[in-house]
Amino acid sequence: MNQEDTTSQSHVSLDNLVEQMVQSYLADGQMHHLNATFLPSRERIIQIIELTRRLLFPGFFDSAQLTTETVRFHVGDLLIQLRTLLNEQIHQALRYGAKVQGNVSEASDHQAAKLTTIFLQRLPEVRRMLATDIRAAFEGDPAAQSTDETIFCYPGIDAIFIHRVAHELWILDIPLLPRMMGEYAHNETGIDLHPGATVGESFFIDHGTGVVIGETCTLGKSVKIYQGVTLGALSTKGGQAWRGSKRHPTIDDNVTIYGGAIILGDITIGKNTTIGGSVFVTRSIPANHTVTMKGQELEIHERRKRKSKKGLEADSLLDFQI
Amino acid sequence: MNQEDTTSQSHVSLDNLVEQMVQSYLADGQMHHLNATFLPSRERIIQIIELTRRLLFPGFFDSAQLTTETVRFHVGDLLIQLRTLLNEQIHQALRYGAKVQGNVSEASDHQAAKLTTIFLQRLPEVRRMLATDIRAAFEGDPAAQSTDETIFCYPGIDAIFIHRVAHELWILDIPLLPRMMGEYAHNETGIDLHPGATVGESFFIDHGTGVVIGETCTLGKSVKIYQGVTLGALSTKGGQAWRGSKRHPTIDDNVTIYGGAIILGDITIGKNTTIGGSVFVTRSIPANHTVTMKGQELEIHERRKRKSKKGLEADSLLDFQI
Amino acid sequence: MNQEDTTSQSHVSLDNLVEQMVQSYLADGQMHHLNATFLPSRERIIQIIELTRRLLFPGFFDSAQLTTETVRFHVGDLLIQLRTLLNEQIHQALRYGAKVQGNVSEASDHQAAKLTTIFLQRLPEVRRMLATDIRAAFEGDPAAQSTDETIFCYPGIDAIFIHRVAHELWILDIPLLPRMMGEYAHNETGIDLHPGATVGESFFIDHGTGVVIGETCTLGKSVKIYQGVTLGALSTKGGQAWRGSKRHPTIDDNVTIYGGAIILGDITIGKNTTIGGSVFVTRSIPANHTVTMKGQELEIHERRKRKSKKGLEADSLLDFQI
Repeated sequence: MNQEDTTSQSHVSLDNLVEQMVQSYLADGQMHHLNATFLPSRERIIQIIELTRRLLFPGFFDSAQLTTETVRFHVGDLLIQLRTLLNEQIHQALRYGAKVQGNVSEASDHQAAKLTTIFLQRLPEVRRMLATDIRAAFEGDPAAQSTDETIFCYPGIDAIFIHRVAHELWILDIPLLPRMMGEYAHNETGIDLHPGATVGESFFIDHGTGVVIGETCTLGKSVKIYQGVTLGALSTKGGQAWRGSKRHPTIDDNVTIYGGAIILGDITIGKNTTIGGSVFVTRSIPANHTVTMKGQELEIHERRKRKSKKGLEADSLLDFQI
Repeated sequence: MNQEDTTSQSHVSLDNLVEQMVQSYLADGQMHHLNATFLPSRERIIQIIELTRRLLFPGFFDSAQLTTETVRFHVGDLLIQLRTLLNEQIHQALRYGAKVQGNVSEASDHQAAKLTTIFLQRLPEVRRMLATDIRAAFEGDPAAQSTDETIFCYPGIDAIFIHRVAHELWILDIPLLPRMMGEYAHNETGIDLHPGATVGESFFIDHGTGVVIGETCTLGKSVKIYQGVTLGALSTKGGQAWRGSKRHPTIDDNVTIYGGAIILGDITIGKNTTIGGSVFVTRSIPANHTVTMKGQELEIHERRKRKSKKGLEADSLLDFQI
Repeated sequence: MNQEDTTSQSHVSLDNLVEQMVQSYLADGQMHHLNATFLPSRERIIQIIELTRRLLFPGFFDSAQLTTETVRFHVGDLLIQLRTLLNEQIHQALRYGAKVQGNVSEASDHQAAKLTTIFLQRLPEVRRMLATDIRAAFEGDPAAQSTDETIFCYPGIDAIFIHRVAHELWILDIPLLPRMMGEYAHNETGIDLHPGATVGESFFIDHGTGVVIGETCTLGKSVKIYQGVTLGALSTKGGQAWRGSKRHPTIDDNVTIYGGAIILGDITIGKNTTIGGSVFVTRSIPANHTVTMKGQELEIHERRKRKSKKGLEADSLLDFQI
């Protein structure tokens, strides 16, 4: 069979394939967005984040040299770009939200412009908060050689930067955008920090991969969290019926939570308390306490080598004889 | 020493460097692909995934507006692009596979075209399965505000989308491609879901970072898994000798597995059973049961501050006194 | 209010917004890099890694066909590109480092060229080490079908490749660059392997998401590590005061560490020892031993359904009754 035959044969079935896909679209209403253009764009949202990053950390991610003389023009230019993009995406998101709620009258241009301005006016405060986070990261990690290193290299800084930006949009009740930003951060850093969570200043997540912080968490000042920590809900078998209820922990000021600890439910960890690694906590802990696992007993014995039935040198079951 | 000297000095050693690298290539056969072009391209495979995503979720990731009128052209265009790329990459992969097995006669163009067509015909069914996954994600998470949000923002949806696509290629015995797709998903989502695993409909992974699901796992319908869960093998010290054997768990319908649980070996978790967080399971569990850790005892005591030898305010050992 | 009004209103506040941002910059010295251009570029560093990848694995990531005849030209071309970029970025990093330490005399061009050459001369040895890692990955994982698959698809190989490159720059005391490379690997793979760590040959990390290996770790030959393992420090409450001290584990030859194990502090795990999954270790373990959790007792009971106050079918607390 020559090339042409193959092609023509495949060509025939293309019509069928198209027809099958179109039928598949028409069969359900949830998995397509035909006849509707009001969706935010992931690409643009990433652009918004990167413009904001350059605005908040001037000179760190720019190729051109910035001086105190030129910076004003640079900032003006970034702000104009950011405002345009943000205005467009907020508008899309508001129209999307209105449509989902069956609200026929579209969200006005005016509303999008107003929310954009409110957001931009919050940026200096966001920047002030981030400065406290950067100091916390540097001071909290002996491996950090400078605050610059934390800005360039720390996923925890990346995550809290995106979070503080997304949280501002969350407060303004803008649909989808904050979550899309949060998921971009999750993708980049392995830290799943829901934009609904309230996070106090001087926050530091070290390493970060696997951290999950739920929607209704409230974190005080100077909280420090290590990789693999979950601040989650108890069983959410009820699913959508739990929507909106406070179901995640409150963490008070100066709490440190070591790697792999799992803290679940609407409980409170009091000020200055330390939660040890891998601990599983489902009730409130008072201030100024330390929580560790009690006597995780280890079995330590010399290895004995045996031939398994498969003739492999396998003491596999010993390795996992729990 | 001026600039020119430095350059010329470095220039001299370039010949040496080239020679050393070439010698390094010739010294071993496993780490180069000289004289062979039959390798799939990671870049193209990502293009294939993104084209498929646009095909399965029309209107979600497109910049142009789609209507029920125009969608047919859109689908036709996407299918043509997808077929061309897929045909090319499947052909490369088959030639690669034939060569690895010492099969001199190259895989024919015809075979690649045939497998491409079979794959494309499976897409409506893949889409039907994904619709059940999206419903499961929305219904299973009180933080989800719409099914759209799960499509835009949920790494679990991203992972199962790529898995269902990759698994179709796995079933067709196409070398390398399915694993490269799976690893792209792993990279994007932190979820390591081997394309060999069989996954029933209405599957939901929440948060997802750190999840590992091994090659010979079988998962029923409506399985729900949280971040950090491992469905793995027992010790694989035997390495390659275990290849192909069923060494991972079977999970029945309606099983929920909470964060950090580790389930190892060729065991079965029965229908409707719940596995609690951080539990370590290496034996089968019957249907309709709940498995939790028994009494992880916590040590909770007030913090005492002491000066350490280094003069640091360190109660470090207390924090980890296990 | 028409479009023009909105725009002009917003336009007025742009001056204010610019002024507020500039004031925010001037208020602190740590979060901007005005009047200084000596920063390395993340984009260029990624280019350096990708060029090095193509140099070390010829034919794997190239679109053009390489033969033993043409490879010399290819290598020469890659080396020239790599040397140029590397020289530039090392120079930036050295100038940055000199400035941070208040050293007015800038690092010379000569120093950057010299370090670049030393680095390039180390590449054949780096490649030799990587060949042992690739063999370890293939032999250690029954799911691997070829060594090619490990090069294309294994995040553990990606992480150790970038680590071995970054570690060479670390040894040469080049600021920032090694950490930026390490963080790129962390971002791509979920493996946080500090460039300061010393890693012997035949190293294999399987799956990898959530692995953390600290700055002062020392790993022997043929060490095998699974997802979620932490080789960390004990409490670093002292922060910067601990900088430079050996505070992470030493792992001897042929040690295997299963998923989720946490090993903390300046302790030693002896040769041929196996650390079981999820074990928490803070003291040295002798050679030829196996360490597992002792009797994690499970509670296994049949599910009872009850109506909760909210009317949900919730046995949530049972699921987490610890």
